[in-house]
Formats: sequence, C-alpha cells, structure tokens
Amino acid sequence: MTVTGPDASGTRGPGRPRNDDIDAQILAATLELVDENETPTVTRIVERSGVSRAALYRRWPSITALVATAVDTGRGMPAPIPTDGDLREAVLGSFLEAEAGAEPAAYPEERFRRRISMAMADRELQKAYWDSHVSRRRVPIEDALRAGIERGVLRDDLDVEACFDLLAGVFYYQTVVRGATLAEADAYARCAAALDVAWRGMCAD
Amino acid sequence: MTVTGPDASGTRGPGRPRNDDIDAQILAATLELVDENETPTVTRIVERSGVSRAALYRRWPSITALVATAVDTGRGMPAPIPTDGDLREAVLGSFLEAEAGAEPAAYPEERFRRRISMAMADRELQKAYWDSHVSRRRVPIEDALRAGIERGVLRDDLDVEACFDLLAGVFYYQTVVRGATLAEADAYARCAAALDVAWRGMCAD
Repeated sequence: MTVTGPDASGTRGPGRPRNDDIDAQILAATLELVDENETPTVTRIVERSGVSRAALYRRWPSITALVATAVDTGRGMPAPIPTDGDLREAVLGSFLEAEAGAEPAAYPEERFRRRISMAMADRELQKAYWDSHVSRRRVPIEDALRAGIERGVLRDDLDVEACFDLLAGVFYYQTVVRGATLAEADAYARCAAALDVAWRGMCAD
Repeated sequence: MTVTGPDASGTRGPGRPRNDDIDAQILAATLELVDENETPTVTRIVERSGVSRAALYRRWPSITALVATAVDTGRGMPAPIPTDGDLREAVLGSFLEAEAGAEPAAYPEERFRRRISMAMADRELQKAYWDSHVSRRRVPIEDALRAGIERGVLRDDLDVEACFDLLAGVFYYQTVVRGATLAEADAYARCAAALDVAWRGMCAD
C-alpha cells in the first residue's frame, strides 16, 4: 500500500470550507480519538469531525493511512545533519536531543505508547507508519553516516541501515521494554553510554 | 510491586486437585485468552479454567502478575554463557540464536506482538513483566560481559547494562518499528551487522 497525504488539488466551490481546513478537522478528530484511547473508526472520525464519510475517503485511501499520519502529529523531520564539523557530536546529539526532546509536550509519551500498542496489534498500520513516516525520518542521519564513510571518519564496510537500527534501538529498548522515559536521568545516561559504544564500533581505525 | 509465583506451599485436601494442576489450568486459560486477543480478565479466566476466583487470588497477588507470567510461556532463561572460550561468539551467538529461535514455535511471533501491545497500554503490566521476567533473563549475558571485562577482552569503562540495552535494542527495532521478524534474511543480517559494530565498540584496545 502506498500511503499518500491529503489531496491538495481538490477544487473549492463557493462557500465550501477550504480543503486545508477539512484535512485539519479530519486529522484532529482522529488524533483526539487516539489520545483518548478510543479506536479511531471511520464512523467515529466522521461524527467527531463533522466531515462527511465521502469527503474523508476522497482524501485518504484508507483509515490506516489516515491513522498513520494522525499519530505522527507533533513529530517533525530531523534537521539535516552538518557533516563538515564534529560528526560524532552531530549524529549522537541529534538522537539524544530528538529523544530527550527539547519540547516533549509536542509529542506526549502517552501518544508514543498508544502508537506502539496500536502498531503491534495491526501490522497494516505498522507498515503504513514505517513507509510514510519512520523510513523518511531516517534519511538525514543515514546521509550523515554515508558522508562520514566518504570522509574516512567511519569504516567503509558499515551497513548504514544496521547502524541506524543499532543507534535507535537503544532508545526503543528504554521505552518499550523498560518502560522508562528519556526524562529519567539513568535512562538518558544508558542511552548516551550505548551510543558511545556504537560510535566507537563505527569509527575507522 | 513484587511479583511472586504461585504459592507452592498450599496444603492439599483429599480429592482436591494438586496445586500444580490448578496453577497450570489458570496459566493455560490466561494464555489462551491472550493468544485469542481477548482481554484476560479474572472473570474470563475463572470461566475458562474452571478454577474458583478465590483459588486464583490465593495463588496470584494480582491479575497483572498472572498475566505477566502467562505471556512469558514458551520463553526460558538463556543458558549460562561460557566465558573461557570465544566470548564474542558466545555472547552474540546467544542473542542471534535466542531471537532467530531454533524453535520459533515455542514463542509465537503473535504472542510477542500481543505482549508488547498490552504492555504499552498498561504500565503496571510492563513493570511486572520487566521485574519478574526480562530483568532476570538479562543476568547470564550481563555476567558474561563482566567476565569479559575482568579478562581484559572488553573495556573496563563499559556500562554493562547500557551494552545489554544496545545489543537487545536492535532486535526490538526490527520487530517493533520495522515489523520484521528474524526469520527474514535481511533483518537477521542487519542484526548480525549491528552486533558486530557494538562488539567492536566494546572491545578493549
């Protein structure tokens, strides 16, 4: 399944709300249901948003694609990683900042937990979220690792995707297995220590 | 909360089923509900097992403790890691074998997914499962890493817990984020490559 965003090309009749407003209403209603721990069904989203079922389906190929986008609300693309300075600092700092969160309120821990819970119960949703959000968010760091290999800072035999999984995995372990958050000093320290080990293993001799 | 196992000291009246049988019936009924994607409530467990509510509560301090033990069915303690031979092979092999699973049927992927889904929706369950099962299962590998430090194979400044989180995290990333299983060759290869990187970063110079 290809997950597409809202169709921005729709025409606007006189007096009809802007497409952007309709998109926002649908996404907001879906996210509210998720945050309230309700299963976001089409019927509930239609009721809560006031948008018609037909309008919803014109914009979203499936409820799965809509939910995948709604649960990503508050997460952004990481900034491009500068690759001309201290690459270690730039890459590891990007992970620690993104996860410890300068603004944790933007993506509440409960939404994260709910997202994982839903994804583990629904492979389609997990796949859609991976395709439309996670895999894209990996790009800046994977690009920075490739630049590090080219610069000779990192080993040239690295599997860049595996390295990303290794760096990100330690954060998921904290939340998914330990039930800890990065706001806790010991969890943060474990992540920082683990990233240290991983980076040393990635460095060219 | 301290999670305790069934009380093995109960007396056995004439004609009463053995305590072990009652324990097994309760656990089997709970696991069936989990595997059928039903919420394992006390009422449902009592109905399905034929064991009385009082007998259930005599054995388990809480439904949470019972569910934590039931969802662990099929997972065992890893064998002690030999620390006198090739430590890298022993530790990394232990991860790859445990996760790739010589006998994946013993712990079905669906049970794993359901367990994570339930734990992310229920912090008490997550904590109970961590205390009673995950944290104990880490011991053999953490001990092997400490032995490696003593032998001078591994760096003496390692945070052993952080190293375990790093090694285990890459496996969770496959299942929880990618939705992949270790039976898939590319997921297995990513884990093996990531463990390689981590181990290199753990080695003494």
